[in-house]
Amino acid sequence: MVAIDDARTVMTARAARLGLDGARTALLVDHMLDAELRGLSSHGVERVRWLCETARVDPSAHPRELDRSDGYARWDGDGCLGYLALSEILDRELADPPAGARLLVASHCFPTGRLGWYAERVARTGLVALVTATSTARIAHPAGGPPLLGTNPICLALPGDPEPTVIDVSMGRVTYGDVLQAAAAGEPLPEGVSVSANGGGQTDPAEITAGRAGILPFGGGQAHKGFALALMVELLCSALAGTDGHAAVVLLARPRAEPVAGLRELVGGRRFPGDGGRDRRAAANAAGAVEIDAGIWKWLTTG
Amino acid sequence: MVAIDDARTVMTARAARLGLDGARTALLVDHMLDAELRGLSSHGVERVRWLCETARVDPSAHPRELDRSDGYARWDGDGCLGYLALSEILDRELADPPAGARLLVASHCFPTGRLGWYAERVARTGLVALVTATSTARIAHPAGGPPLLGTNPICLALPGDPEPTVIDVSMGRVTYGDVLQAAAAGEPLPEGVSVSANGGGQTDPAEITAGRAGILPFGGGQAHKGFALALMVELLCSALAGTDGHAAVVLLARPRAEPVAGLRELVGGRRFPGDGGRDRRAAANAAGAVEIDAGIWKWLTTG
Repeated sequence: MVAIDDARTVMTARAARLGLDGARTALLVDHMLDAELRGLSSHGVERVRWLCETARVDPSAHPRELDRSDGYARWDGDGCLGYLALSEILDRELADPPAGARLLVASHCFPTGRLGWYAERVARTGLVALVTATSTARIAHPAGGPPLLGTNPICLALPGDPEPTVIDVSMGRVTYGDVLQAAAAGEPLPEGVSVSANGGGQTDPAEITAGRAGILPFGGGQAHKGFALALMVELLCSALAGTDGHAAVVLLARPRAEPVAGLRELVGGRRFPGDGGRDRRAAANAAGAVEIDAGIWKWLTTG
Repeated sequence: MVAIDDARTVMTARAARLGLDGARTALLVDHMLDAELRGLSSHGVERVRWLCETARVDPSAHPRELDRSDGYARWDGDGCLGYLALSEILDRELADPPAGARLLVASHCFPTGRLGWYAERVARTGLVALVTATSTARIAHPAGGPPLLGTNPICLALPGDPEPTVIDVSMGRVTYGDVLQAAAAGEPLPEGVSVSANGGGQTDPAEITAGRAGILPFGGGQAHKGFALALMVELLCSALAGTDGHAAVVLLARPRAEPVAGLRELVGGRRFPGDGGRDRRAAANAAGAVEIDAGIWKWLTTG
């Protein structure tokens, strides 16, 4: 376990090498530390390393507004790192929030990381946020073939007291983080979570990281439904933003009612989606400490 | 097999008894016949009978506009049958379509039937339509308990030539039509598609039709994802429309690109979501004939 303050300090020092200003560095660190606190380490500190080692980050780039009309604004990432582009677009839109609703479309906006982070920020301003985005193709057709679609999550956040309600569903049967982990360990993936180009069978994770094999959509015997949802996200984002590059789409809307309490009562003692991550973060904050992978911590603190 | 023209004639004669004017009767018949042509008989002629036998239809009711602002319009069904309310709301909004996007919220809007029917109509005008709606609670928590959520489908339609692309995913593992059929035949549902109030086990369909047991969300071992999606729809609709009654939410947006052809090429010879219903309808139209359940046909043509 590492003290959260220490984690933030060393993550900030490392991320500072990307050449971004202090505020934007802090934003990145907040995104990734928040994922780590929620137990989603594949969106956590590991991404700081990934950015430092492989991404080209242009510190001078900012998203650019392309088009604006009734209830609609279209932006382009314009070379800005996706995390920062989507954050800045939301900040600028929320400076003049919609009285009713507004659809935001961001082309060339990648990577965006964990969508719940953005949706939660919007919900803290009193608006409902529905967020979706495309990313690198990982999901294959249930009948086999190469990866065709990103894990294409759909995320909804509603304002709440003391905290927003955030629900985030990705369409993959496993996360790409699971694949990377298996690849690093030299282990095959469990049967039935991936498909080779010819369909079925156990897949070497290296085939997936190389882009030759794909993860199955979630759904078990009804994986065609998970595939249809991932395709829906891909079609929506591409139709609104263009087919070139990855895109994010955000719907902002003014709520008229507070349905969470009533639905929580109906669900009773059963698991309410989103509570796992929220509770893990609360526990980490209460303890002031977070579990960080030893290898990543070593990378953060040395060299 | 019945000639499509004959089916339309007898459905219209029957539905006319609801007391609606000719245009609205034709709209209802078109919705239900379209479902029948697509092989979705649970949204088909059966619903004409259901309306005639159990629904209170107020022929004078029309949806009422409650609120309008930037990119946003909120309506109430106001006692109007959901099918007709949502159709009329869309017709009135499309008479002055958005240059960018518009979010439509319809409270007290039930039943709305097959959402693809509305989304396809919107897409024929050149807009993208994302449609969702709540309905009678059928889906239970994967851990058991009473039905909590509607099957809460999400539907996307994109303009296309010669036809729009329509993808429609409902969050239930089985349809309520399957449940009604099993109940009528006195057969239990297959294991693992439903949950008793205490979780697990085989459920008597009569328990579901009585509202005491529920259908599982789709997802197999990841039914929590299907549940989360159904909950997302419930929260979105209720937050925007109010927690009282069922609601529909429609996002209209102007597309900037045509992504379907490229994605079809990627999917190749594998099944493309939505094509099954589209092809069945095309085949029925080509043959000029549709398969209609003998019992329903007898009801339509006698008495």
